[in-house]
Amino acid sequence: MKSYRKELWFNIPKRRGFINITPQVEGALHDSGVREGLVLVNAMHITASVFINDDESGLHQDYDRWLEELAPHAPVSKYLHNRTGEDNGDAHLKRQIMGREVVVAITEGKLDFGPWEQIFYGEFDGGRRKRVLVKIIGE
Amino acid sequence: MKSYRKELWFNIPKRRGFINITPQVEGALHDSGVREGLVLVNAMHITASVFINDDESGLHQDYDRWLEELAPHAPVSKYLHNRTGEDNGDAHLKRQIMGREVVVAITEGKLDFGPWEQIFYGEFDGGRRKRVLVKIIGE
Amino acid sequence: MKSYRKELWFNIPKRRGFINITPQVEGALHDSGVREGLVLVNAMHITASVFINDDESGLHQDYDRWLEELAPHAPVSKYLHNRTGEDNGDAHLKRQIMGREVVVAITEGKLDFGPWEQIFYGEFDGGRRKRVLVKIIGE
Repeated sequence: MKSYRKELWFNIPKRRGFINITPQVEGALHDSGVREGLVLVNAMHITASVFINDDESGLHQDYDRWLEELAPHAPVSKYLHNRTGEDNGDAHLKRQIMGREVVVAITEGKLDFGPWEQIFYGEFDGGRRKRVLVKIIGE
Repeated sequence: MKSYRKELWFNIPKRRGFINITPQVEGALHDSGVREGLVLVNAMHITASVFINDDESGLHQDYDRWLEELAPHAPVSKYLHNRTGEDNGDAHLKRQIMGREVVVAITEGKLDFGPWEQIFYGEFDGGRRKRVLVKIIGE
Repeated sequence: MKSYRKELWFNIPKRRGFINITPQVEGALHDSGVREGLVLVNAMHITASVFINDDESGLHQDYDRWLEELAPHAPVSKYLHNRTGEDNGDAHLKRQIMGREVVVAITEGKLDFGPWEQIFYGEFDGGRRKRVLVKIIGE
């Protein structure tokens, strides 16, 4: 069994944003040499997500508006978590909706995807350097 | 390490619906010959989910009503995504609540489940043929 | 390829609660002897979650309040599922928001975590003994 590990670093200047990280994951898969197995891609921070959906900017705006409806940023006093001095209570909730991680099948050396599947990093508390972990196991 | 791959195809005539796919996943596991490992089951489409919960029709109606409250289908003009000509903006949101994938342990050749765990395909934009991927790795 | 399996048992006296289970998962990882691989940690019950976030009590109260807003326990007659004689319809919905499982990378014999990542058991229908499965594969 082979294993391979890579960290991807991001710094989203705004509070929230989505980035298509499929090319970086494909690069890691190529470097790993794994032909059959699984790749885990997860946010290493708890106010960010990794998820799979469509690379369509209207949809991303829909997600952003919807997450703000379900877990508004303001008033920051709404969240007990913010008594710690943070203002990111909402980001911890948004991240649970969008998820921490994806697991993707590797078949014949490629991400085994349907026609529209793309991997995104979702940031809900930006303005700082944060990481995604890519871990590949297989043969 | 063994690996095994199978696609399951579905065509839900209504817009939304849930199907218990546990027997098909068990069939794939049997065919794989894997005794110890992991099985990944994921929707290959981005307006559908694979999730684990109870096979109880009242609960499934509760899910359907709740998802409509959280991300209503109409008015379709509510979603920027629908400016692409689609009317499935809501389906991309519902899928994030219910999830893309499950990973299940394989122990002694069986799905290592608690007493009520069953695997479901959740369709949020039906009326077309769509796929689920089953990928098994182990020994 | 090595594999290892362990069940963790919990009995949360209240209806809802969160427990940090990171030490138990680390103990299982140590016992497994796996240095490189993946660990799956999942609730074996369908009204409970396993998720990764921050070990901060204010945040946990925020989660609890938020989940009650999104899927209130009462009135129990709101859920068709409760016609089966249960009163836990809400718990099946809350569990979908927080998720069934996490998959964590194992690198050099340790959980490959960012600075604040901790694993939690989330109970939404307590007062009974329930299980979490830890399944480890790797080398």
